[in-house]
Amino acid sequence: MRKIVVAPDSFKGSMSAREAAEAMERGIKAVCPNVIIEKIPMADGGEGTVETLVDATGGRVIKVNVLGPLGEKRESYFGILGDGKTAVIEMALASGLPLVPKEKRNPLVTTTYGTGQLIKAALDQGCREFIIGIGGSATNDGGVGMAQALGVRFLDAEGKEIPFGGGSLNRLEKIDASKIDPRLQECKVMVACDVNNPLCGPKGASAVFGPQKGATPEMVELLDHNLAHLAAVIKRDVGEDVKDFPGAGAAGGLGAGLMAFCHAQLQRGIEIIIQATRLAAKMAGADLVITGEGQIDFQTAHGKTPMGVATVAKSMNIPVIALVGNIGRGADMLYDLGIDAIFSIAEGPMGLEECMKNGAELMERAANRVMRAININLLR
Amino acid sequence: MRKIVVAPDSFKGSMSAREAAEAMERGIKAVCPNVIIEKIPMADGGEGTVETLVDATGGRVIKVNVLGPLGEKRESYFGILGDGKTAVIEMALASGLPLVPKEKRNPLVTTTYGTGQLIKAALDQGCREFIIGIGGSATNDGGVGMAQALGVRFLDAEGKEIPFGGGSLNRLEKIDASKIDPRLQECKVMVACDVNNPLCGPKGASAVFGPQKGATPEMVELLDHNLAHLAAVIKRDVGEDVKDFPGAGAAGGLGAGLMAFCHAQLQRGIEIIIQATRLAAKMAGADLVITGEGQIDFQTAHGKTPMGVATVAKSMNIPVIALVGNIGRGADMLYDLGIDAIFSIAEGPMGLEECMKNGAELMERAANRVMRAININLLR
Repeated sequence: MRKIVVAPDSFKGSMSAREAAEAMERGIKAVCPNVIIEKIPMADGGEGTVETLVDATGGRVIKVNVLGPLGEKRESYFGILGDGKTAVIEMALASGLPLVPKEKRNPLVTTTYGTGQLIKAALDQGCREFIIGIGGSATNDGGVGMAQALGVRFLDAEGKEIPFGGGSLNRLEKIDASKIDPRLQECKVMVACDVNNPLCGPKGASAVFGPQKGATPEMVELLDHNLAHLAAVIKRDVGEDVKDFPGAGAAGGLGAGLMAFCHAQLQRGIEIIIQATRLAAKMAGADLVITGEGQIDFQTAHGKTPMGVATVAKSMNIPVIALVGNIGRGADMLYDLGIDAIFSIAEGPMGLEECMKNGAELMERAANRVMRAININLLR
Repeated sequence: MRKIVVAPDSFKGSMSAREAAEAMERGIKAVCPNVIIEKIPMADGGEGTVETLVDATGGRVIKVNVLGPLGEKRESYFGILGDGKTAVIEMALASGLPLVPKEKRNPLVTTTYGTGQLIKAALDQGCREFIIGIGGSATNDGGVGMAQALGVRFLDAEGKEIPFGGGSLNRLEKIDASKIDPRLQECKVMVACDVNNPLCGPKGASAVFGPQKGATPEMVELLDHNLAHLAAVIKRDVGEDVKDFPGAGAAGGLGAGLMAFCHAQLQRGIEIIIQATRLAAKMAGADLVITGEGQIDFQTAHGKTPMGVATVAKSMNIPVIALVGNIGRGADMLYDLGIDAIFSIAEGPMGLEECMKNGAELMERAANRVMRAININLLR
């Protein structure tokens, strides 16, 4: 072994991706002190993407005061990658469901305005490339709030701005995008999006994701109708037909809004991260790749970090080990998809809390023993 | 890989050693279908030794009606190895602490008589070689009960047999060994014993092991005094000086009794099992050894199965993997003592009960993923 790439996702509630990568490094070094270790903290566009990409590229975090999902003031942040020009934004940090107490969750009124403010703040910092993760939204406003923050006007019959929230979109009569922030013209916006839902209908934003944001069946019907109305007005006034585009329904229609007003391209989150981290280039010449995530299971195959990492590694014929918190149902299928072996960091029967609390230590020892096992053939 | 030896101990409460070995075999075969697998269920002389050695050698189990620790009738058993002439006996199956309800534990009265009956029954079956595991005793009678069952008479001042139990040994005036079973002369008796305690004194049977068998401090004093008296009478009437022999204090002095009356040799349990299973011969030519036990920790180095297996393997330069239920404190030291890598069969945070219930399945998958990891270098 001369070179090993460690490219884990974060272990939610236990370790950041960087912490996991550092623990892996310690465990490997104790067995193979001379091996070159390339640490590439990973993410899949979901929670932790800002932290991970800032960590991975030596970037920085910028704090911004924004309006939260309910229009309340709150501090949020975004990241600027090490290249100094690419912003990484998680919509959930400004407009996310976890920011709204359960009893106040109501997609009729929640807004993506804060997400637009993050984009604006990044423009102010000189960013012209964007990576925007849109998972975990509290909203169903079709990205209208986001666009409002960037200067687009959404007017009712009396020429006044419609209120925040997906419940008011039926009052929209006209969109005036003439005052949109002109710097957006210079921008490339990549949206990390792992769902293919259209904006409306039975597989649309409101029907599929509305209930988990607090929508009753009646609210879902209204929200769905309102998004269809929004799409029609966008088509007429902005000239973009986003309604049936796969992913338009992501994040309560924020996918559609980003496409219509920011000319965003939607892509699988893991693919965006793989590009942003230059994973393939860094993997070249490696003898082994170690990845990981908190829970590996049948869902991992659908665009989660270990799968993305393994796909790149497989294309280079590099073996891949996954070190995970828990090996869940269906993980075995990953053996056919590019992961050579999967190990839990658990060292025996233990509680979830204990495992999470000691994540870094357990990870270090897991990496250590895996290297010992792999080395067996080298020693012979 | 052409040949792999799997030599696990039992996983108490979860899998017999044979079941563990079979699960390992299944897991390996799924990755390396053509490898030759030699299954050698192991034990260390403690609980499960009869079952394991009978399994490992294709022997059989013989049921025997005996007197239990309190003199009660109960069914017990011993094993005859595949060679047809070696008996394997666990004293705990006739005279063990688990056979006595907690509130009745009282080493003043408990007897090893049943253990002697097992020996006698094995003699009746034609056995002339014995492997006797003496862990887990309920007794503190110096092996007097055992010897009584084999024809030795322990007489009081009136020439009557003294009653059962360590509390009555002070009434012993004379030992008459003239009627001892003459077949014992033809026998070789190996006693699996992992402690070095002498019969008496602060490190003796009564002081060290008495309390866990129900002895109060006053009882310990009496028992210790009584064993010293017994040793003196043995020395005078039988001509054996066993008092200070290392291991004489094992199993409430049964070690001393077996030495005095059966000319037993005491040896580490794992070493006896290694010989009985012909482990070294079967290991010859193996590319890998997989061992295991329920809990691996700092105690493992002191003569537990994985350590014994690793010592033999190391002498042949064969790598060793341990698959265990739980990796406990100090297990890392085993990396310096011949075990190349240790893995838990746990697949994430899980309860002890869940882990034990699904032991065989977890073991199979653990063996599978370890083979996948080891194979990585072969694939390159």
